[in-house]
Amino acid sequence: MLETQKIDEYFMRQALMQAQLAEENGEVPVGVVIVCKKVIVAKAHNQTEQLRDATAHAEMIAITSAANHLNSKYLKDCTLYVTLEPCLMCATASMWSQVGRIVYGATDLQRGFQNYDMEVLHPKTLCTSGVLEGECAHILTNFFQKKRGK
Amino acid sequence: MLETQKIDEYFMRQALMQAQLAEENGEVPVGVVIVCKKVIVAKAHNQTEQLRDATAHAEMIAITSAANHLNSKYLKDCTLYVTLEPCLMCATASMWSQVGRIVYGATDLQRGFQNYDMEVLHPKTLCTSGVLEGECAHILTNFFQKKRGK
Repeated sequence: MLETQKIDEYFMRQALMQAQLAEENGEVPVGVVIVCKKVIVAKAHNQTEQLRDATAHAEMIAITSAANHLNSKYLKDCTLYVTLEPCLMCATASMWSQVGRIVYGATDLQRGFQNYDMEVLHPKTLCTSGVLEGECAHILTNFFQKKRGK
Repeated sequence: MLETQKIDEYFMRQALMQAQLAEENGEVPVGVVIVCKKVIVAKAHNQTEQLRDATAHAEMIAITSAANHLNSKYLKDCTLYVTLEPCLMCATASMWSQVGRIVYGATDLQRGFQNYDMEVLHPKTLCTSGVLEGECAHILTNFFQKKRGK
């Protein structure tokens, strides 16, 4: 396995742990970690229910948290790992923050930013998809199946 | 003048006062107020410099603030007044929050959500543009002219 792939899977597992935390709180299980020079500088999970704020997506919370931690508006040296493909809001937030790289797990066929035929990300942002895709998708389908079964 | 137009201009003036506050703090002067049943429930201005967070747009701060104030994820009964056409991030944030109506002043030909040939807003969100357009545009052009002149 390539070194980059190993590193990506390692950090995606950390993002999955965040998604797990979201699930435990009754939130749609999406998790994020932001990594700068191989160190996690922010982690967050979806908190739209807990905060009663529909914009409290894991990516938004993590971007603000990373900016605070690094005391920098821009996150050019950072990689954002997220278990689900970001929506347009979060993808555009990454553009404003000039996130260096985005790595996501599961594809979001409904709300994912790549459903739109347009450039949303910053031109310098690299993007990798499908890292631990199965696990990232499973935690979501499992959550919604349980919810429907209630 | 129609009653709605009068009301819109009244609240846009409040949003302009927020933009003025932004300018005084060296921020790109964009201001927002969110109104629910004719009462302002949130006001905010762009704080990307002050907070060193590129996602700290006036709309994002105001939406979170209104959700907190009303203790509601959704802002269906709210009108968001903003001096500048929202970007994709903020327009999508309004979609997630199901903002009832958006009223904006100046058009943003570079980053405005209406530059994209797609439905970003919630299907039930009404949108009015061009309210106090001249004043909303002037505060921005004036800010950038001063900045260039430095």
